[in-house]
Amino acid sequence: MQITVIQSSKDMSLDSMTNQTVIVIDVLRATSNMITALMFGCIEIIPLETIEEAKSLKVSGDLLGGERNCLKLPDFDLGNSPYEYMTPQVFDKRILMTTTNGTRVIQQANSAKHVLAGAFINAHACALAALELQDDITILCAGTNDAFSWEDGLCAGFIVHELQQITGQSFQVNDFGLCMLTSYLEVEQKLNQALLESANGKKLTLLGFESDILYCSKVNIMDAVPVLYDGKLISHRSKNVCPS
Amino acid sequence: MQITVIQSSKDMSLDSMTNQTVIVIDVLRATSNMITALMFGCIEIIPLETIEEAKSLKVSGDLLGGERNCLKLPDFDLGNSPYEYMTPQVFDKRILMTTTNGTRVIQQANSAKHVLAGAFINAHACALAALELQDDITILCAGTNDAFSWEDGLCAGFIVHELQQITGQSFQVNDFGLCMLTSYLEVEQKLNQALLESANGKKLTLLGFESDILYCSKVNIMDAVPVLYDGKLISHRSKNVCPS
Repeated sequence: MQITVIQSSKDMSLDSMTNQTVIVIDVLRATSNMITALMFGCIEIIPLETIEEAKSLKVSGDLLGGERNCLKLPDFDLGNSPYEYMTPQVFDKRILMTTTNGTRVIQQANSAKHVLAGAFINAHACALAALELQDDITILCAGTNDAFSWEDGLCAGFIVHELQQITGQSFQVNDFGLCMLTSYLEVEQKLNQALLESANGKKLTLLGFESDILYCSKVNIMDAVPVLYDGKLISHRSKNVCPS
Repeated sequence: MQITVIQSSKDMSLDSMTNQTVIVIDVLRATSNMITALMFGCIEIIPLETIEEAKSLKVSGDLLGGERNCLKLPDFDLGNSPYEYMTPQVFDKRILMTTTNGTRVIQQANSAKHVLAGAFINAHACALAALELQDDITILCAGTNDAFSWEDGLCAGFIVHELQQITGQSFQVNDFGLCMLTSYLEVEQKLNQALLESANGKKLTLLGFESDILYCSKVNIMDAVPVLYDGKLISHRSKNVCPS
């Protein structure tokens, strides 16, 4: 099994993805939010590129969630803070979500055989789900406007580490993946601090979202793994997931 | 002073470089060779993109050096092994050099205010030279055919570390630079092994160039810093260098 880590979707080769399991990572905060929402009973999340798409698809009972410039959108029910997804409000609901990076990159990865959403909070469960699928794995860092974001790279490194720990194997890992793995190992004991030092960490702290960063740097606290099925992210624990 | 590390020349913004010192890194093996050649008395190195350019510029006394697919070219005097540049043959000579990545990327960085060539073997001297120039620093990993190469990223991280150690300052470093710094710190005590595990390390080992990798992973053994001046790489220790 080959593991490839990609720094942003602009380095993605769509052709190579058709036989792969792609794990999309947007630690701050889209994929952390999706995982949290599914853990709190949300039925499914529709990742969308534009605000207009989200609004036009909304039917009674749906929730609109997401951000632009890190902030909640007018007329939206939920913003982009994981604490907004940790409430009974999301139980049994469908969420139409649009964010600057995470939801867009999930849509771009749509041609992959399987698409999972990963973050620090579900890394172990995400690694297990990817191994079950038995295909080569591409870990795709969402980044920020197609530029590399350290927190996504660190999480990619952590997932590579989890894959190795679970199987006891050293997989074939590309150079970028080896780099992310070693960067993660160097800051393993101070992940909070690393995320606070990242560009997005600094930006979110200035906007008053420091508690979001601390939450998103917790490792393996959830076992929900969002998997893309027919344009919808549902929990890997549900029935009918991981269709091949 | 801002430090920006870039994973390959395709992420380079030419506009942003005009006021910057750019350090180009191609550890295996172009920039390691350039530094070695200057230490052994070579007068200047002309970095060229094509074999034809190199051949057409050659006059009596010049040496042709470089590679394609890691191997010495027909009719060339020198290949791409640092041991070929550690001989009296290069003393007082001009070398016309063309390689797949390093010489091409140095040419692409030509619009920068200053261009230096860095590697593990001269990292400390390179950091000192860049600090003297007092401009913001971009460390440009040459990579391999525009893809990231771990050995270049590790060396970028090492140079960031040297810049911090020399000045006692924590500079503003972009996310990619923080990632390279921490990856370097994780493998600091086993650089040889990391370079051997990189994709280029494995390729060169298969081709019989393992000793080149071991040489190129030695840190701070030389104080020559190639600087680009009028299309020629000359030693930063020479007169008339670092024109602003």
